[in-house]
Amino acid sequence: MLDRLRIVLIGTSHPGNIGAVARAMHNMGLSDLALVAPRCEVIHQESISRASGADHLLHNARIHADLEDAVADCTFTVGASARSRTLPWPMVSPRELAERLPSECQPSGSRVALVFGREDSGLTNAELQRCNAHVHIPTNADFSSLNLAAAVQVVAYECRLAWLATQTQAPELSSDEHDDTLATHADLERYFEHLERTLVAIEFHDPAKPRQLMARLRRLYLRARPEQIELNILRGILTATEKQAARTKTTPDNPSTHE
Amino acid sequence: MLDRLRIVLIGTSHPGNIGAVARAMHNMGLSDLALVAPRCEVIHQESISRASGADHLLHNARIHADLEDAVADCTFTVGASARSRTLPWPMVSPRELAERLPSECQPSGSRVALVFGREDSGLTNAELQRCNAHVHIPTNADFSSLNLAAAVQVVAYECRLAWLATQTQAPELSSDEHDDTLATHADLERYFEHLERTLVAIEFHDPAKPRQLMARLRRLYLRARPEQIELNILRGILTATEKQAARTKTTPDNPSTHE
Repeated sequence: MLDRLRIVLIGTSHPGNIGAVARAMHNMGLSDLALVAPRCEVIHQESISRASGADHLLHNARIHADLEDAVADCTFTVGASARSRTLPWPMVSPRELAERLPSECQPSGSRVALVFGREDSGLTNAELQRCNAHVHIPTNADFSSLNLAAAVQVVAYECRLAWLATQTQAPELSSDEHDDTLATHADLERYFEHLERTLVAIEFHDPAKPRQLMARLRRLYLRARPEQIELNILRGILTATEKQAARTKTTPDNPSTHE
Repeated sequence: MLDRLRIVLIGTSHPGNIGAVARAMHNMGLSDLALVAPRCEVIHQESISRASGADHLLHNARIHADLEDAVADCTFTVGASARSRTLPWPMVSPRELAERLPSECQPSGSRVALVFGREDSGLTNAELQRCNAHVHIPTNADFSSLNLAAAVQVVAYECRLAWLATQTQAPELSSDEHDDTLATHADLERYFEHLERTLVAIEFHDPAKPRQLMARLRRLYLRARPEQIELNILRGILTATEKQAARTKTTPDNPSTHE
């Protein structure tokens, strides 16, 4: 799917922005860059520097005289736009756009163009009216003009997420949370018994006046979902603590235990 | 909600990136920028130029000597991270992070820090281990390093969408999970110091041979998101434990301390 997506930049005036767009595209797995009548050099110290290793996209970029030429082979063309223009047009959010891409990209030969305008003035009405739909990135109403590469970054990010969702085994990030087996219920209960015994030994807890102490500690640890290895550490701490408490008990410092 | 979010940049070396971050933040409606030990001038021709009208964020940015100081008052701290580190940590996608924000920002006094590292080397393991969770932006595996401002743009965009969703829906009641204020970052760091001191006192921990002990304990407690009252209990346990250890040290059972 990602190889069916083309980023089209019209009338860009800063080489740094073109480089930053190349970097954002390559980060998100896009590679097809088309430039319409750029108002600056494309291969330039600034664009190479900002591309930060994605400069092959700059070298491979095709230069076109007008939008028509850049999107001639595309089956779905979407223009980035500020809010509503004089003539209302089908408008999608970046997320809605991305959700449509898997089906837009399915037919063989299909190709999607995502078109971004000039830094100072965006796309003209004539250009917008050559698009199937417009995409608008939600912004602060008082400060709505995104940097060109930032706009491409947001749209390309949504495209990547939509593509990841189509992969049968989307990489799961949340599974990174643990590197060991979670403790079982029985392990945890043994831990709570050990904890209570230790708290009594260090004279922090009086089972005759329990208040909410053990309940609060249970809630805390059950919320944390400890792993086996973490529980082993916690029990090791309890054992070391008990050892200190036992030594204290056998010393004259604490004669009550001899009575 | 957006006014509860702080963007923290650590060790940034290019003024242009700081300016571009300010622009991305203001575009998305964020305004609280904190800079930790910047390795460049903050108010600079390049940063002003790239901020493109959002330079009040640069002038209002607070400069801190270290991460501790920048997030001391925060109740939820999330660090931007590449994929796996030696010790896996709770990991969320930008979207999962954003979906958590409305409830994270609901309690009065809550404040969320989104922490981004150096252009060349990201966040250190020590910095990452001060975070409740890590956020990873899905990228091309062969070219995974996003520009700093691009990373902030993506995360801030997701924050804005999550905020917009709260504007159109009935405000969601937060879960019953907590009945007290969450501990702040500074409270937790004091707890970790106290914990380490106590583990040394009971001879469970040798700072000369740290292994992963403190990192694993940090991960466990940061994952649990302790409340103030829970942290008070945990610190009470440490104090009681220290008292036992101190009594042991003054007895003939342990003559080494008299040498």
